[in-house]
Amino acid sequence: MEVAEEVLSIAKAARKASQALSYLPTSIKNQVLNQIADELSNNTDYLKRENEKDIDDAHKKGLSAALIDRLTLNDKVIKGMIEGIREVVQLTDPVGETVRMWRRPNNLLVGKVRIPLGVIGIIYESRPNVTVDAASLCLKSGNAVILRGGKEAIHSNRALAGIMQEALKRNDVPEAAIQLIPIVEREAVYEMLKLEDLIDLIIPRGGEELIRAVVERSRIPVIKHYKGVCHIFVDAHADEEMAESVVINSKVQRPGVCNALETLLIHQEIVPSFLPRIVARLEKEGVEVRACEKGRKTVPDLKEANEEDWHQEYLDLILSIKVVSDIDEAINHIAEYGSMHTEAIITSDYSNAQIFLQKVNSSVVLVNASTRFNDGNQLGLGSEIGISTTKLHAFGPMGLNELTTLKFVVYGNGQIRD
Amino acid sequence: MEVAEEVLSIAKAARKASQALSYLPTSIKNQVLNQIADELSNNTDYLKRENEKDIDDAHKKGLSAALIDRLTLNDKVIKGMIEGIREVVQLTDPVGETVRMWRRPNNLLVGKVRIPLGVIGIIYESRPNVTVDAASLCLKSGNAVILRGGKEAIHSNRALAGIMQEALKRNDVPEAAIQLIPIVEREAVYEMLKLEDLIDLIIPRGGEELIRAVVERSRIPVIKHYKGVCHIFVDAHADEEMAESVVINSKVQRPGVCNALETLLIHQEIVPSFLPRIVARLEKEGVEVRACEKGRKTVPDLKEANEEDWHQEYLDLILSIKVVSDIDEAINHIAEYGSMHTEAIITSDYSNAQIFLQKVNSSVVLVNASTRFNDGNQLGLGSEIGISTTKLHAFGPMGLNELTTLKFVVYGNGQIRD
Repeated sequence: MEVAEEVLSIAKAARKASQALSYLPTSIKNQVLNQIADELSNNTDYLKRENEKDIDDAHKKGLSAALIDRLTLNDKVIKGMIEGIREVVQLTDPVGETVRMWRRPNNLLVGKVRIPLGVIGIIYESRPNVTVDAASLCLKSGNAVILRGGKEAIHSNRALAGIMQEALKRNDVPEAAIQLIPIVEREAVYEMLKLEDLIDLIIPRGGEELIRAVVERSRIPVIKHYKGVCHIFVDAHADEEMAESVVINSKVQRPGVCNALETLLIHQEIVPSFLPRIVARLEKEGVEVRACEKGRKTVPDLKEANEEDWHQEYLDLILSIKVVSDIDEAINHIAEYGSMHTEAIITSDYSNAQIFLQKVNSSVVLVNASTRFNDGNQLGLGSEIGISTTKLHAFGPMGLNELTTLKFVVYGNGQIRD
Repeated sequence: MEVAEEVLSIAKAARKASQALSYLPTSIKNQVLNQIADELSNNTDYLKRENEKDIDDAHKKGLSAALIDRLTLNDKVIKGMIEGIREVVQLTDPVGETVRMWRRPNNLLVGKVRIPLGVIGIIYESRPNVTVDAASLCLKSGNAVILRGGKEAIHSNRALAGIMQEALKRNDVPEAAIQLIPIVEREAVYEMLKLEDLIDLIIPRGGEELIRAVVERSRIPVIKHYKGVCHIFVDAHADEEMAESVVINSKVQRPGVCNALETLLIHQEIVPSFLPRIVARLEKEGVEVRACEKGRKTVPDLKEANEEDWHQEYLDLILSIKVVSDIDEAINHIAEYGSMHTEAIITSDYSNAQIFLQKVNSSVVLVNASTRFNDGNQLGLGSEIGISTTKLHAFGPMGLNELTTLKFVVYGNGQIRD
């Protein structure tokens, strides 16, 4: 079969499955999820054998150790997937919730009811655990999913998808609820991105290059996040001990992730005491500090931060520091250089806390807490399917609710329009 | 200036203005809106003179009477715009609402707060009143707007935008809150659609061709609606008088709009009595009826409906009718041929009403009411900026809330992540 034809037939099957899925009882969805978890556990050896084929190919192709690490399905990763599914079982099913209902002057009763989006396409790179994480969130929220993983993980992904489809079949749920595109050519992705009548949402998960390529070609709405240039502003009136602890946690705890701190803004009044203190601690933690001119007057040995640094998502043990003369300068710096991901203020001043929360329009804005809390689990949404830095549909971490939309339902008794 | 450069500078100014707009007090926004309404009223003669230039050009170019009608700014149209603005003043400002707030086990207080989308681009065709309607909704919801009207209306749109910017200026609100792209070349639109870092949302308003051209080129999220193939299903147990009244209202009251009825599905049990009755009434109202084979057995003189008819948005006094054997066949027909716009069931059966509301996932699903109620004003949202048939972000009529998004705010006292 031609690539275009095969992708089209997968998408059509998904669309058809999505109709039945949209009103599938929660109990059945949970039963399928529990059986998937059981079968992953029963088939650990099989999964590791299939994964071994991908690892062998990766070695042959000379892929990097980091990539091979992400590709590997060992007992720990498989256990993590199983635990992830059990957590999704515990989450409240969002489908069917009436979020609001009101009566009109003509006695029409109007409500907004949560329904699945329909068909979701996930385009991702090497991690095979995304196959299971994404599929379980889509199933729980009543969506059909089309998975398009990286070609390096094709054997692992096929094995995982096979186990999930088996569980669907055993419960008389359409197997097309969870489908993997088995075609390794990139053309399959491009064909998928054209099918706006059949697929409702595309979520790309991977590096900026992958995401830009998807956005450029897609006629289907895409929820994405390019990067996180996250800021902390340490205000004049800040508890220095708290500021130190939050800055270190934000920068050091896991520097390679999108909600890690990249630029620290410090009010000039607190610079004399706080800057030397935080620099000493950062250097002790192995962080390279780059500072603006004002900062380098207080701590002369620091490397210079240039214009490029303010745009930078280091994803590494590097931090740029800028001294600002007041909260407005901090807010303006964030508006100019930030990526609308995560920003925090450390302050004991009530009014500055409120100003920061009101004027900074990033997906998560915090007072006196680590930027690392921009995470669906940490904020109480349960498992997340990703973080969005586009404001449409979802802004910030996306949980099950963000995989749904609201339709209007109207109860009448013969009303017509004048 | 080059087109690309000029569009970029407009978008940058809009982005900058959007920062101040995001926390502009409601009282100032309402004051500006009221002054715009006053000035439109004071400048009616000027507006009509400028509009005359567009009308003259349209006559010279031999544009159609229908198009010239849509283009015309007369006293009635100007009065309508002014009334529209006064209604927007009355609407609740959505910005700043905390829709939910909860405390986490670690004592973090997490909330979701409504903020403007930022910068909205509106691409539309000949009606100059869209200039004012769209701008007032964007301003009230704290968004900067970039207007790109049709070139036929350029003099009218410039005059309207000038009056609005004057009111902004007088109140020290950045003039770039409302901007018109003064370039008539289509290239300006294409340049606009590339600026995903500066523009948050594109709303195209016009024919399907315009909308498809925008979707194909845009890297910015687009909220759109291609067409409305709306259905009514008359169930076996339906009050025939109510069914007649609702069907006639849905088809005849304004046949050229997207929420008008296009296909009528009738349960076979009620066909013997209801089909002749509704056909007689439809024909009396000047509607051409096209029916399936089963229908033509009951009323033999009817024109035949073919496969193409089920896909058709007639936007005219034509209706296709299909006899179905049960509610499932009706629901499946809607899933296959519908455009997810508006569907209604006429029934006195409690359980069928519930089944229809649950299984049909269109933007508005009604029981015993006219399809013509799919409208922001009619459903109680206040003025609408459009109707969305894509499920992302907004599904159905879009009011002020749909021009906003939710950010997370987090109140901490030094929390860090383990």
